[in-house]
Amino acid sequence: MSARYQDIARQLERRLDAGEFPPGSRLPSVRRLASEHGVNSLTALAAYRWLEQRQRVLARSRAGFYAALPPADPLAHPAQALPSPATLVEVDSRMSQLLALSGSDIAVQLHMAEAHHSLYPSQELARRLQQTLAQRPELIGAYLPAAQEARLRRLLQSLAADWRLDLPEEEILFCNGITEGISLALRHLTRPGDTVAVETPVYFGLLQTLASLGLKALEIPCTPDAGLSLEALEFALQYGPPVRCLVTVTNFQNPSGALMPDDNKKRLLALARRHGLSIIEDDVFGELYFGNQRPTPLKAWDRDGDVVYCASFTKSLAPSFRLGWLSGGRHHEALARLRASSSLVSPALLLGALADLLASGDYARMSQKLRQQLAQQMERVADAVLAAFPRGTRLRRPQGGLLLWVECPEGLDSGRLLEAALAQSISFAPGMLFSAQPRFQHCLRLNFGQPWNAAQADAIAALGRLATEQLRRT
Amino acid sequence: MSARYQDIARQLERRLDAGEFPPGSRLPSVRRLASEHGVNSLTALAAYRWLEQRQRVLARSRAGFYAALPPADPLAHPAQALPSPATLVEVDSRMSQLLALSGSDIAVQLHMAEAHHSLYPSQELARRLQQTLAQRPELIGAYLPAAQEARLRRLLQSLAADWRLDLPEEEILFCNGITEGISLALRHLTRPGDTVAVETPVYFGLLQTLASLGLKALEIPCTPDAGLSLEALEFALQYGPPVRCLVTVTNFQNPSGALMPDDNKKRLLALARRHGLSIIEDDVFGELYFGNQRPTPLKAWDRDGDVVYCASFTKSLAPSFRLGWLSGGRHHEALARLRASSSLVSPALLLGALADLLASGDYARMSQKLRQQLAQQMERVADAVLAAFPRGTRLRRPQGGLLLWVECPEGLDSGRLLEAALAQSISFAPGMLFSAQPRFQHCLRLNFGQPWNAAQADAIAALGRLATEQLRRT
Repeated sequence: MSARYQDIARQLERRLDAGEFPPGSRLPSVRRLASEHGVNSLTALAAYRWLEQRQRVLARSRAGFYAALPPADPLAHPAQALPSPATLVEVDSRMSQLLALSGSDIAVQLHMAEAHHSLYPSQELARRLQQTLAQRPELIGAYLPAAQEARLRRLLQSLAADWRLDLPEEEILFCNGITEGISLALRHLTRPGDTVAVETPVYFGLLQTLASLGLKALEIPCTPDAGLSLEALEFALQYGPPVRCLVTVTNFQNPSGALMPDDNKKRLLALARRHGLSIIEDDVFGELYFGNQRPTPLKAWDRDGDVVYCASFTKSLAPSFRLGWLSGGRHHEALARLRASSSLVSPALLLGALADLLASGDYARMSQKLRQQLAQQMERVADAVLAAFPRGTRLRRPQGGLLLWVECPEGLDSGRLLEAALAQSISFAPGMLFSAQPRFQHCLRLNFGQPWNAAQADAIAALGRLATEQLRRT
Repeated sequence: MSARYQDIARQLERRLDAGEFPPGSRLPSVRRLASEHGVNSLTALAAYRWLEQRQRVLARSRAGFYAALPPADPLAHPAQALPSPATLVEVDSRMSQLLALSGSDIAVQLHMAEAHHSLYPSQELARRLQQTLAQRPELIGAYLPAAQEARLRRLLQSLAADWRLDLPEEEILFCNGITEGISLALRHLTRPGDTVAVETPVYFGLLQTLASLGLKALEIPCTPDAGLSLEALEFALQYGPPVRCLVTVTNFQNPSGALMPDDNKKRLLALARRHGLSIIEDDVFGELYFGNQRPTPLKAWDRDGDVVYCASFTKSLAPSFRLGWLSGGRHHEALARLRASSSLVSPALLLGALADLLASGDYARMSQKLRQQLAQQMERVADAVLAAFPRGTRLRRPQGGLLLWVECPEGLDSGRLLEAALAQSISFAPGMLFSAQPRFQHCLRLNFGQPWNAAQADAIAALGRLATEQLRRT
């Protein structure tokens, strides 16, 4: 009983729902829409006007129609937003579901963002920790690590200067992994009910942290090639709900692997300044670069102290130490107080051991070895995926990090693929985990942190076969 | 121009402000007030009615008048509430001020709640950690400590059973020091603006945590002899603002040293059940008992899962490990999720080392040695205080912990005493830190965690002289 323009509008709405047009992206012109549906331009325009009334599209004068932002609180209705296998649906339990795979006996595990323990200099770190203990056994009984902190701050200041990041020594604060740093920054910068801009695809752990703080996630497109779309962000800041802050993984984003170009880093800061937007920079992968030069953090160009920079040695040196750190700009003092009332201090023993290692000068060599191994493994995994996965599968080889983002042809359901893979004792992270919207069902995230061997090769070949079979059957 | 009854009321109000009558305590009878001021009973009654209108006192039928609760948000006006030396006034900076003393070169430091590092089995722990590393160097590269956690949970379950505390293995969660456990529990149980009942005197770090979460503290009297006053708590629950939860240090409270009797623990649980009150139990000192038997946590009698039990090995075994743990009762699952999104996991290496130590069976011996030393040091410090401090000084020797609460005669200003002490390179924690109300200006908290020696003896003698002089001059 609906008019023709309504049919057209509803079809377009379904394509919007499916994520075909991310918020801020330009929609087909009125003329093109008309010709697609074999109607005249007035009917096509009526369809757009109907969608405009429903706040699904925005008209920009003389520039056509654009996809509007999704409803502001996607996390409030995860069941609606995520029509996926029940075992992996709940936002709250995403991370624990995935962590549970780690405790299992799956033969080839590609679902985490980690390097195999053999890639870390465990023997050397163990020896160094033994020396630290032999020289200063009283460190174990040390309650407040003031001396270790002061020493480590100076060493980190000098390390960051090598990346062209100049930090005042007193603006370095330690925390329990980068997770605590980001959580503290969010707690300081936001109040429950606020909207936080994030990249999409986005690290699912961040969605969980936002949910736990009662925050709404506004997902801004991020592509493997160019990273966060500044155009989409600007559009969101202009037309969307008020955004309190942005969380961005500038270097080797999780899961897309994107490296934000330096120019974009500078433009992002200018954009943030214009809109009074605070930025939380997650640089947990920055030290895992494959090129000749460590990428410069966004924070390096921050003149106004609006960027809370968060980093960690968890991925790059000693996962079991859980030593993260942050530099909070003009929020630093407040963050230091919040940290003191949230978990007080970090383990003095580990702070001391890390300081000893950095002071020894061995870190550069250890880090280079890890990066070389990861770069080689990335190439092997990428080659294997391209050889085995169905035609039309796309990937971009990341310039660092631990993660390969694989975009299969539309129609593939990576949730179902995971079920089939688990039956063959292979795991990966399915695309649906990386958005509260059903945008990435056809994508998967593979960890290339495991040493390359026959089992890995077989596993990726098997994944490719399973994906091909699934697409053939649909 | 004011009537006589108003003069009397205003005098009484000043005594209430000064903390002479804690909330819930009974005020002089009408007859007594009348005779004190040489007026008739009707005038005294008018004074009480005037105070009742101002919500400073509560009338209970046939039982007389009682001190009402203080204004609900004492922390909002710290400058008003704390007329004390400027350097130590701000609630937010209390802890950092005190921590800063630790980084200094003060000769005799009695301001912390710590044992000297030589009292901890540092050499043995260092040797054991070296063994752990030699046997399993891969632990350093371990990202997720699932195996170490599972092992340690079983060992903690068995340890707690020795204190008559039966916990399901799956209801043990690790955290970064007890501070994180309490912070997580508060974040889960409350919303900003809520009122939380605490003991007074109260650990200043808790006041800071409450302030950082936008929570109001309602202080319930706690005496060295009997611990938390259940009468005052019941009164507060009946007549005060809605209270969301109670934080209580049941065993060797900080700073009073009070041990809550088992009967009171059971009565407190019944009271909480009647009023739908959740309880956060801080048992960080429980393992430092001087008697024959480890005190039983409140949690042992909790049938409904309303108690979030928090503990740590920071004071009792290895300060630099920062290994805390909690058992969240019916809130456990939510707390586990909150922990995952706040700091993910604890350092695998330290969890593994602690598990190795507990499995070895050496912990009991190490713990006993520490307790014996602390008990001896407590006696020395208490003797020295009683010998040196002005007549009228009171203390109760605690049955465990690290802290001695010293009540000097009224009129002593422990803030000024601290200034004089610092000039002689001696530190302690002044009473004003332990309440948002000016209740404990005449009190001080001394740490007896330092080995007894001539410098300690001289320092306490000097403190006593300074206190005596100050009282003489006023």
